[in-house]
Amino acid sequence: MTTRAPNHLPAWQALLSHHSRIASLHMRRLFADDAERARRFSLEACDLFLDYSKNRITAQTMELLFELARQADVEAWRERMYAGDAINTSEGRAALHVALRHPGDAPFPHADRDVMPQVLAARRRMREISDALRAGTRLGHSGKPITSVLHIGIGGSHLGMEMAVQALAAREAGRPAVRFVSSVDAANLAGALQGLDAETTLFIVASKTFSTAETMLNAASAAQWLRAGSGRDAIAGQFIAVTANDDAARAFGVAAEDILPVWDWVGGRYSLTSAMALPVAVAAGMDAFEELLAGAHAMDRHFHETPLEQNMPVVLGLLGVWYRNFFAAATRAVLPYDYPLRALPAYLQQLEMESAGKSVARDGDALGIATCPVVWGASGNDAQHSFFQLLHQGSELVPCDFLVAARGAHASPGHDDTLLANALAQAEALMGGREAAETRARLEGQGLGGPALKARLPHCVFAGNQPSSTLLYERLTPRTLGALVALYEHRLFVQSVCWGVNAFDQWGVELGKELAQGIVAELAGGGVGSHDGSTAALLERVRRMRSKS
Amino acid sequence: MTTRAPNHLPAWQALLSHHSRIASLHMRRLFADDAERARRFSLEACDLFLDYSKNRITAQTMELLFELARQADVEAWRERMYAGDAINTSEGRAALHVALRHPGDAPFPHADRDVMPQVLAARRRMREISDALRAGTRLGHSGKPITSVLHIGIGGSHLGMEMAVQALAAREAGRPAVRFVSSVDAANLAGALQGLDAETTLFIVASKTFSTAETMLNAASAAQWLRAGSGRDAIAGQFIAVTANDDAARAFGVAAEDILPVWDWVGGRYSLTSAMALPVAVAAGMDAFEELLAGAHAMDRHFHETPLEQNMPVVLGLLGVWYRNFFAAATRAVLPYDYPLRALPAYLQQLEMESAGKSVARDGDALGIATCPVVWGASGNDAQHSFFQLLHQGSELVPCDFLVAARGAHASPGHDDTLLANALAQAEALMGGREAAETRARLEGQGLGGPALKARLPHCVFAGNQPSSTLLYERLTPRTLGALVALYEHRLFVQSVCWGVNAFDQWGVELGKELAQGIVAELAGGGVGSHDGSTAALLERVRRMRSKS
Repeated sequence: MTTRAPNHLPAWQALLSHHSRIASLHMRRLFADDAERARRFSLEACDLFLDYSKNRITAQTMELLFELARQADVEAWRERMYAGDAINTSEGRAALHVALRHPGDAPFPHADRDVMPQVLAARRRMREISDALRAGTRLGHSGKPITSVLHIGIGGSHLGMEMAVQALAAREAGRPAVRFVSSVDAANLAGALQGLDAETTLFIVASKTFSTAETMLNAASAAQWLRAGSGRDAIAGQFIAVTANDDAARAFGVAAEDILPVWDWVGGRYSLTSAMALPVAVAAGMDAFEELLAGAHAMDRHFHETPLEQNMPVVLGLLGVWYRNFFAAATRAVLPYDYPLRALPAYLQQLEMESAGKSVARDGDALGIATCPVVWGASGNDAQHSFFQLLHQGSELVPCDFLVAARGAHASPGHDDTLLANALAQAEALMGGREAAETRARLEGQGLGGPALKARLPHCVFAGNQPSSTLLYERLTPRTLGALVALYEHRLFVQSVCWGVNAFDQWGVELGKELAQGIVAELAGGGVGSHDGSTAALLERVRRMRSKS
Repeated sequence: MTTRAPNHLPAWQALLSHHSRIASLHMRRLFADDAERARRFSLEACDLFLDYSKNRITAQTMELLFELARQADVEAWRERMYAGDAINTSEGRAALHVALRHPGDAPFPHADRDVMPQVLAARRRMREISDALRAGTRLGHSGKPITSVLHIGIGGSHLGMEMAVQALAAREAGRPAVRFVSSVDAANLAGALQGLDAETTLFIVASKTFSTAETMLNAASAAQWLRAGSGRDAIAGQFIAVTANDDAARAFGVAAEDILPVWDWVGGRYSLTSAMALPVAVAAGMDAFEELLAGAHAMDRHFHETPLEQNMPVVLGLLGVWYRNFFAAATRAVLPYDYPLRALPAYLQQLEMESAGKSVARDGDALGIATCPVVWGASGNDAQHSFFQLLHQGSELVPCDFLVAARGAHASPGHDDTLLANALAQAEALMGGREAAETRARLEGQGLGGPALKARLPHCVFAGNQPSSTLLYERLTPRTLGALVALYEHRLFVQSVCWGVNAFDQWGVELGKELAQGIVAELAGGGVGSHDGSTAALLERVRRMRSKS
């Protein structure tokens, strides 16, 4: 595979000079010059309609970007992923999250390395467990049905699951309540346990290694709470584990049939379609989760089979590279105009930033280019009343993803229309802005004139030319959510390949973990290890604060 | 006051050349060279300990930054704020949020324009209402005590209140449950109403103008729900309004004694210490809210009275300018290692980005400099398992704020120590990194050698030199929270003054609002107005999706 640094590829160089020619063009002008622009720069796949015409691109930009994808071997890396090659090179592992939603029983990725039997077995077990919980036939230690499920996991074992439960669970009432605990801060667990009953609460401990410090501390405290409430050790029966470390889960006390598997070829942040999603199946039903898998699989096929030019993850990934490396955009905003998707930005923050927040290439060579931007965002309607001021009139170029449902989940015409109108209007305003002449006319229309108008005018001008892409879908169904998840996974993969980074390792989380272990020991033992002056002074200050009665 | 563009100030120019000299220095070296560095770059005020020694600064950097503050007239603008001058120039208004926590009955800001009688009257009414709700003596239409409070507001009428309720309310059980609705998405209101009873639910409608589209739609739907559940119009008695528009609240049906005031000299994003915080008083008690006010006032005094060099908001604001304008950092991360503060990043996102996300100076001149960065973040412990990979090994300089409590709210030694250790360790790792030689030794210690070591090594090196500031406090009390809120308000003010922008207007939210009104009408009426090709195509596509049966 290619080992050439991305910025030495001919297409990269061509994009640099192309950028210098078109960077100052205003999208208003591009729309005025081309009546076909909206049609030209839109795509449909898996019930998602993507309008990417409000981006600072021309037809030539896209041609060059597709050429970059070819030169960076996006197609070959894609094949390698689907073939189960060890594309996670630093750990010698495959990245086979696409297998998790592969349907049927044909071997996948191929007969020599067929992971489907274990995938299908895990799905069956997810169904048994979630069906029993939803039917009220799974009982706690005293014989009462389980009514609450508390999921304990952090990072990749948490963010996607909570996002999907929020996105889908409003449809289902009268089922076990699902709550999440992630942080080791005792306030998180204490809050989550409030109102729960040891007789009717089931815990899911989600940790690939079953050794994540935060998760194991929370699991131990939860077990203690259960013991205190039940007067006995009720772990077997009221704890489920999702892990690749069977032995540790068993040692913790989880019954063998309550251990669900994940595998070394599924990274935590890519595990939303694995058994890690048990809380999603509990909250929304296994049928809904299977629909989610079908949506993800449809997008997997689209990504795998569609030429680059019509390939939605490819187009979005290339636009990401375009803004990051040619416009030097340091961030990208994700703006769901769909309240159930409000945790999507936090989910994508991990998916993208943990995958591509790196400075060395797969082979270890230093990359001299910018890689992953900061991904951030919030519920779009809320964000309008918060940080949109900066998007409209700030000094930063921030490409935005708008996610928009044509129909809301609750069929409330006044609310639905207002929400939708706001999404379209904000994207329109960000693109077009409002020039001084038009602003002046408007202010005059409001009766302003003379020095008052002159003083007000510059504050009310909008430069526009702020790019966005809009993903429109009829309604947020499980299938749509699955397609969105896979779209963002593959979008990120395309970007990573263009940058030359391995999207599937995360060595950058290790150093902090190691140092933390040392400080925990120091806090317990009273000694002080070797630290910089700041850390030593903070430790000393903590001791002083804690010694106050 | 000064009208000189900030980048034409002599100190700005001096900082530019100073930056070019020190930008490549590593903080490891700065600590090694100066045993006093941690002491030199730390401050204490209002029970907050600020360690800012892990920033890419020298003594000279700080001297030049303080000089910049002087040349930008930070001290004079501060005086003008406290004097009640119309420093919100584009709207001709004062910005007197400091009056909201002014104690006692001495006139403030001065005898000619004393706002204290109305401030104190509002506080008294907050106490009456919140005391009655907490005591269970406020009754719904059928005579049962109110047990749930649903707060309806968006942006500045929401983010701070929910943040503070989360931060403080865990202390108080058996009081009315407080929930929030902000988005116009019907899913938000429907979710919040789940399980509530029309007989025992009280609504707070928070909107300065009482005309915010989203809030008024949600209020109307809530009133409809209340009517459906009670069989009559129960708005009077079960709706409270917080607004500057009495007439509109009365017209909506709110009883006169249930209308709490805000004033034109309090911006929405600065209103957390106003009557807008009624839900905080309900959830945590008015005594706790008065403690919060006392903490904010203590920080107000610190900001007002302390020389620049020892002034915490000034130091933090100047560091913000340093990274934004000299290191070109496009973002800043806020990382509370204190789960109850998890909504702080969203609150600060609005506070800072809506205040300073601007490109023109107070007088309307175009600013040729970068202004507000993107402010983002999450619960620190969660973020370690999410986006910290990028902070440690990505390509972006991201200054971080760590917020750390020496004691957790729940006295859980294992949890507390782990949380605290992680905070200190992450800041230590971000600063120091781990060089290749040390990494090699460590990997060898793990038994790695030869090509395997060579392949792994570059992925496990940490460049470090990622700056952070740590705010340490004994425990998150209402007083500490108040001090933090005021600290961030004034920090932002200092930055705004350095950039020359008016931190108290928000003209950039208007255009989208106007365009949305037009599209709402089009969606209702079926016509299509004048739009760019993209917006027109999206509208057309929405119609098609909606017309499917």
